[in-house]
This record gives sequence, structure tokens and C-alpha cells, in this order.
Amino acid sequence: MNFLEQKIIEDGVIKEGNILKVDNFLNHQIDVDIIRQIAFEFKRRFRGKTVNKILTIEASGIAIAALLGDLYDVPVVFAKKGQTANSTDDKYVAQAYSFTHKKMNNVFVSRPYLTANDKVLIVDDFLADGQASKALIDIVHQAGGEVVGIGIAIEKGQQQGGRLLREAGYQLESIAILESMDYATQTIVFRGQPAQSLHHKAERP
Amino acid sequence: MNFLEQKIIEDGVIKEGNILKVDNFLNHQIDVDIIRQIAFEFKRRFRGKTVNKILTIEASGIAIAALLGDLYDVPVVFAKKGQTANSTDDKYVAQAYSFTHKKMNNVFVSRPYLTANDKVLIVDDFLADGQASKALIDIVHQAGGEVVGIGIAIEKGQQQGGRLLREAGYQLESIAILESMDYATQTIVFRGQPAQSLHHKAERP
Repeated sequence: MNFLEQKIIEDGVIKEGNILKVDNFLNHQIDVDIIRQIAFEFKRRFRGKTVNKILTIEASGIAIAALLGDLYDVPVVFAKKGQTANSTDDKYVAQAYSFTHKKMNNVFVSRPYLTANDKVLIVDDFLADGQASKALIDIVHQAGGEVVGIGIAIEKGQQQGGRLLREAGYQLESIAILESMDYATQTIVFRGQPAQSLHHKAERP
Repeated sequence: MNFLEQKIIEDGVIKEGNILKVDNFLNHQIDVDIIRQIAFEFKRRFRGKTVNKILTIEASGIAIAALLGDLYDVPVVFAKKGQTANSTDDKYVAQAYSFTHKKMNNVFVSRPYLTANDKVLIVDDFLADGQASKALIDIVHQAGGEVVGIGIAIEKGQQQGGRLLREAGYQLESIAILESMDYATQTIVFRGQPAQSLHHKAERP
């Protein structure tokens, strides 16, 4: 097991409905040490590649993107969802269905912040059906830029996003790939590994 | 002028309606060098204080909080707005009116991530009427924790948030305090300084 798989075993919780809850270190409370290791691991896996921009989507991708941007010393752009009242600029817009919020989101980036000169590393905390990643790729291509690769902390391997992105030829690097999980036994299978029992702490919600 | 005031002069744009647009380095595209300097400046201004948690609110505070959490090597928590479909835990909840989105938001933090042992540094990119800061303070107090201080990148000095927080006795450290700005002349006054003309780039939106 790598550091992130180990952390999932230690601190993750499987909720009913096949939901892996990792909001105590990844997407609500942020364990800076883990995010730092995720950033270093992405830098290692994409070594040799020229990257001049990191792209993610609000909100929980931002911490990973910020520490990775710090390592590469390149600008970070986070795509926004929906519309904001004080923004009327021209934007690159794509659509992504959010299974979490059960609605279609507009995903947008203001035009000045992505250009045809950009070699973009896309990062996010989760990959499931690939809706967010596909929207971000679409936006990079609208700008004429290049997608260098896609770095994901946790890929839900039983959903189609990872397969589709790899079949499309992208270098997709997922640090932990969940093959399956079981609520009743609180066990999880990472790709290529035997089943593991989570160290589920009963006092956690 | 300090580094952030200088950056605002160089890259900020005043839009109609007294809106300072800094989304090319702070809240859409992120200039990592500036965010890093903001984090170091907060660490310097709160030196001698014990901090064991950084608290911010999604989304644009997260990059600052992540780099500051990296400096302090403490966990970061970002408060969420609204409700999410896969979260039914007990939460600390407060309310904050968003002038940007013209609606009342629920702001919440899951209970396990703030405790009575926490000495919390609250950070955010902007402070205007103080709605978000007040909600975050309320949440820390609900948990029985201590607010060590509040670090803000850009305070709108002509709005009441800063005054109210200082009168309430909090150590509020704002790196740039806007006293006034003028759309027609694209000039800005930082607290205690003469008016400055923005280096407004005509080709920007």
C-alpha cells in the first residue's frame, strides 16, 4: 500500500450507498502532510513533462493544486461552478453533471487565464464518472492549450471515468484506485491488492 | 506599499460598482508566489501565538489556508456553504449573507473537525462586511475553541467588517486595506497612503 491507501485504511469510513468518506483528511479537514505527499507524488509521476499551469475545480481540488503549484512554481487556476454576480467576462464554459449534488453544473474559466501556450496539468481529489475532468479538458482545448496529464488522489475504479480517460490517451495518474468497497464489513479493495479492513473508529460520525 | 498592495496596483482592475477585480492572482487564477508571501506574512504577524488549526471558507480562501497550513504544519479546515447530498453528520452551523451571491448561506463545519482544544487562526482572501468571519468565529466558539486571530489578504476598509472585528477585540491582520477606489480614474487609496493609479491593462476584460 502507498501512503494514501494507508491513510484511507486508517481514517476513511465507508458510508451506505458506496460512499467513501475521507473528509477528515482530504475534502473538509485537510491533513497538510497528506496533501503535500500527494503533490510530491504527482510531481514525481509527471517528471520530465513541461507544465506551466495547474488546473482544478472548486472547492476540494484547490488545496492539492495550491501545494502542487508551489512545487512547480506555476500559476494555479481553479474552474468555477455556476455563475457569480460580479463576473461578466467572457469565459470558457463546459458542463459537468454532479452526482453529489444531482444537478448539471456550468464549469467555467475566464478566458485570460488559459491560453494556447498553456501546458496544463489537471488535478482533482476524486475521479468517478469523469464529468469534472472531461469539462476541464474541454476548457483547456477551447483555449487551444495542451493537457499534459491528469492527477487524481482517489479514483473510483468501478466507475467509468478512469477507463474513458485512459482510452482517450491521457496520462492519468491516480494515487489510490478503489476497486470495490463494502459497507457491512467496512472493507475496501484497491486495484491489484487484497481486501483491507478499514480501521473504522466507532466514535466518528 | 507592501507586496500585496503593489500587486493590486499592477494587476488589479476596478469594475463599476466599487468592485476590485483580482481574479488574475487571488481568486480564480492564483499567483502562487503572492499566496506564498501572504502565508509568510500571516505567520510573521501572528508570531508567538500558538495555532493548531487553520480555518477558512470555501472556495477562494483554501489556497491561502493550504500554504499557511503547510508553514505551520497544522490541519486546515474549510467551512462549507449550503448542504451536500452525501453529508448527514452533525455540524456546527452559522449563517452568513453573501453580498456577491445576494443570498443567505448556511456555513458549516462537521463537529469532529473543531474541538475545545483548538486554537484557530481564521484566514480569508477578502473581508468586507465581515459576514463570513463572524460565521467562522461563531462556529469556533460553538466548538469551545479559541480564535487566535484573523488573517485577511484584502480588507475593504470602507465597509464595517474590520472595524467591528477590531472593536470586538480580535487580532485582525489585513495585508492590504482599501480605503476607497474610483472606477472613472482607476485609482485606489490604501489606508494611510496617497492615491495610486492602477496599471490597468486595456486588453484585460
